[in-house]
Amino acid sequence: MKLYGYFRSSAAFRVRIALNLKKLDYENAFIHLRRGDQAGPEFLGVNPQGLVPALEMGDQLLTQSMAIIEYLDETHPEPPLLPRDAAGRARTRALAAIVACDIHPLNNLRVLRYLHGPLGHDQEAIERWYNHWITSGFNAFERLLADDPRTGTFCHGDTPGLADIALVPQVYNAHRYPLDLTHYPTILRVYENCKALDAFAAADPDRQPDSEP
Amino acid sequence: MKLYGYFRSSAAFRVRIALNLKKLDYENAFIHLRRGDQAGPEFLGVNPQGLVPALEMGDQLLTQSMAIIEYLDETHPEPPLLPRDAAGRARTRALAAIVACDIHPLNNLRVLRYLHGPLGHDQEAIERWYNHWITSGFNAFERLLADDPRTGTFCHGDTPGLADIALVPQVYNAHRYPLDLTHYPTILRVYENCKALDAFAAADPDRQPDSEP
Repeated sequence: MKLYGYFRSSAAFRVRIALNLKKLDYENAFIHLRRGDQAGPEFLGVNPQGLVPALEMGDQLLTQSMAIIEYLDETHPEPPLLPRDAAGRARTRALAAIVACDIHPLNNLRVLRYLHGPLGHDQEAIERWYNHWITSGFNAFERLLADDPRTGTFCHGDTPGLADIALVPQVYNAHRYPLDLTHYPTILRVYENCKALDAFAAADPDRQPDSEP
Repeated sequence: MKLYGYFRSSAAFRVRIALNLKKLDYENAFIHLRRGDQAGPEFLGVNPQGLVPALEMGDQLLTQSMAIIEYLDETHPEPPLLPRDAAGRARTRALAAIVACDIHPLNNLRVLRYLHGPLGHDQEAIERWYNHWITSGFNAFERLLADDPRTGTFCHGDTPGLADIALVPQVYNAHRYPLDLTHYPTILRVYENCKALDAFAAADPDRQPDSEP
């Protein structure tokens, strides 16, 4: 199994956590996003969308982090990343989607570059944009955790799953620009509980071989 | 079952298609997004994230369109919206995610309003932004359909599923600003095949009771 990723890609970070939780070995192929490797003919030959992560398994290529993680969960059921009951699964997927559909797509590198380049915004406007979408998503995420008895040590119960896998890289990103996270005590508690696990700690961007300051 | 939606919300449009494919009856609660109903205390009491769609079932509230559709597919398995094999499911979810994670989050109303308001962009810049993300996503979507023998009458095989449910509202949106879709012959073929089905046609924004010109 070969993971095309980049240390700071939070979608690749999610897949690294899932692979670690499933105790699956994988080889790394580093695609340097800041240098533009993702737009080169070599990587476009692998993934025509030019995005990481992509997971190569034999002659099969899986793309899109959430689809990859669902696949890993279906083909390697233990430990499960989704609860057994349909309602719990819907809650877990909805929490993950707050990050994967409502926060992260607005704050990834290609979007920040569009704001800076074609739209001509400075660092201050970009920082406000960045924090605006995190705040909006985290306000909802925090309430959905704090107001629901199904929240436990982790987002849903006492075992880590899909929602935690989405949340942790987003909290990591939230540290990039100053943002007061003390408004999100439940998010922070879950984040700390996750970081204490090897599967999450080993997936940290700063611990990847392609990490840069 | 009560669906909180808005005729032009493409995420609500997805859920309407899924409910129709499953032949499930539902009641409508219209949240007028342009007027700002989603930010009012009444709807925030229902869904703290202030987004549509939300599906109320007894005392349970489901949010996030893709999580709702997966729930409907798990609790009402016929007709299935995902293929049986894990690889096919991963492909279908990845196609859906190109729309749900890489195109639509950048082009929905709250983002266009941020570009216009706080960032001060005019209609022309917003139109370029809008089409930029559709083009980038559709270029990949088209190649993934055209180059894969699993593409059939629909995105995956000859029955409609999750990828078609995501694609059709996005093609509908692509008509809002002028964009040459003839570069996407496979997307257009699948779109026309979907529109010929009652489940898709009845979910069309223009056919909803809250539709406005």
